[in-house]
Amino acid sequence: MKKTAVACSNLALIKYWGKVDFEKRLPTNDSLSVNLDNLTTTTTVDFSASYKKDLLEIDGIRAAGRKFDRVRQHLDRIRSLAGRQLSARVVSRNNFPSATGLSSSASGFAALTKAAVAALELKLTEKEMSIMARQASGSACRSIPTGFSHWHKGRNSQSSYAESIFPASYWQLTDLVAIISHQIKSVPTSIAQQSAFTSPFFRERLKRIPDKIKALSIYIKKRDFQSFGELVEAESLELHSIMLTSSPSYIYIYPETLELMHQVKSWRKKGLDVYFSLNTGHNLHVLCLNKDREKILALLKKAGIKDIIINGPGQGTRLTDKHLF
Amino acid sequence: MKKTAVACSNLALIKYWGKVDFEKRLPTNDSLSVNLDNLTTTTTVDFSASYKKDLLEIDGIRAAGRKFDRVRQHLDRIRSLAGRQLSARVVSRNNFPSATGLSSSASGFAALTKAAVAALELKLTEKEMSIMARQASGSACRSIPTGFSHWHKGRNSQSSYAESIFPASYWQLTDLVAIISHQIKSVPTSIAQQSAFTSPFFRERLKRIPDKIKALSIYIKKRDFQSFGELVEAESLELHSIMLTSSPSYIYIYPETLELMHQVKSWRKKGLDVYFSLNTGHNLHVLCLNKDREKILALLKKAGIKDIIINGPGQGTRLTDKHLF
Repeated sequence: MKKTAVACSNLALIKYWGKVDFEKRLPTNDSLSVNLDNLTTTTTVDFSASYKKDLLEIDGIRAAGRKFDRVRQHLDRIRSLAGRQLSARVVSRNNFPSATGLSSSASGFAALTKAAVAALELKLTEKEMSIMARQASGSACRSIPTGFSHWHKGRNSQSSYAESIFPASYWQLTDLVAIISHQIKSVPTSIAQQSAFTSPFFRERLKRIPDKIKALSIYIKKRDFQSFGELVEAESLELHSIMLTSSPSYIYIYPETLELMHQVKSWRKKGLDVYFSLNTGHNLHVLCLNKDREKILALLKKAGIKDIIINGPGQGTRLTDKHLF
Repeated sequence: MKKTAVACSNLALIKYWGKVDFEKRLPTNDSLSVNLDNLTTTTTVDFSASYKKDLLEIDGIRAAGRKFDRVRQHLDRIRSLAGRQLSARVVSRNNFPSATGLSSSASGFAALTKAAVAALELKLTEKEMSIMARQASGSACRSIPTGFSHWHKGRNSQSSYAESIFPASYWQLTDLVAIISHQIKSVPTSIAQQSAFTSPFFRERLKRIPDKIKALSIYIKKRDFQSFGELVEAESLELHSIMLTSSPSYIYIYPETLELMHQVKSWRKKGLDVYFSLNTGHNLHVLCLNKDREKILALLKKAGIKDIIINGPGQGTRLTDKHLF
């Protein structure tokens, strides 16, 4: 009963920040994202009576503590649905540094969900798979469907899921992830999210989200890169404004990230179509059209960025025969 | 008809951002500030029939363009009130780098107002002097009175002025200004302020200002440094959140400023009573009680900050006999 799945991480274009139900991971607002084809997690899950207890290995290291508990709880959810009690061995590999704001928990829990569900021979629709992944890590639900996804916040667990609004091939965008630091973030996102409602601006943000979702969907549909980039960049600055004005306040931006943000703005002033987005990590997503990719890559290298991950829109989570053990 | 005045710059504790009347410089909200005794401008104004036109020299350099126009317009206001048409020679010296967010326009226009009014033998009350200074540069009105000041936004020009709420000697605070860079800011504050209302969060900010003013006045009165520091730091992050979410967005924070903000937070985690405030420049104001001054100074030096200006609460704008020419 061994299955392996590959999942892409995703970049939130309209961000997910704040929960109305922490246990079920029901978000305060809808979000839009795009899967990233070169930020992937591969996970093999093997259920067997030969395992006395669940075993987890991530990137070659035996996992314990909080990380392990989250995975075990998720396996319990899937076991409970399948009516099986077998322990599992889980081996997971990221092709990128984890816990630095590149959403390794999104790709990780999407892959885990897909592999575990298949290993226990559960028949789930894509919607049901997205709902299942969401319960482990909110943004993981957006890595299940392909390309550009819309996560409907829903009214309850069964109505909170992501669906694809455009396939990966719809728009030839490039997301150049500038790896600023391999350092682990000082505060996990799930902790910082709890303070969202303490920002005096959070409710105003929520009010405006439906219009932003509508606008961005139209920009993607029209492949209007300038409007898309402006909105995506403004949205990520808004997210950080919410964190800056929360109690306690969180400053996730690193000096080197900020330096690069200033640079992206200066490149734009010189006429280049380039925008940034940043999540709760210090790495920066630099967005451009494929036609400008080489030019922007050269500028990033000139700016001293050594590690750059080149992404296009990615597929949804899928099974593979290439098991990790 | 030569007079010389000395004025302190001031640090806004509750910030001034946004105008309801650009011409008269009527602000959207009340603000609170403290004069800084070691950031001063000295200005000598000499009205004489021997000058064919106004002449302005700032820090040894003959000023022209936008800077000169602003000074000439202000001299016109004062000449008009005095009913005199004499041209003036104005020589001004800052003891700190100008246009890097240290409010050289506040101290500069406060000193200019005081010296020019005295030179033309106008009898103005402190309130009238504050109103006069405000018309040249909003925050200059707060440098006129002594110590801690409250700028009442007012309903019109005659009711928009600052008054002292506590004298400079009331509280032995230290403001260590960490000079991050001598570079001139890329966008003048007056330009960025025009976009205040484009931030989706600006109206919510305005609603909450009266409560913040009340709270901070009480913390100063009680000399409650922890509550004071928390509110002042949060307020400065809020100001930057407004700029980040404006259209166009403004990022005044420099990488090195951000680095130091992270450091101040880490010192606090280790038990030190230290907070930061930042204006629209890249230099950081590091606030502590006098008793901790040497400790914080040592930490700043260890963090690689070479230029530090040590300030206590400063006096109001005053005349001096030490003319600059």
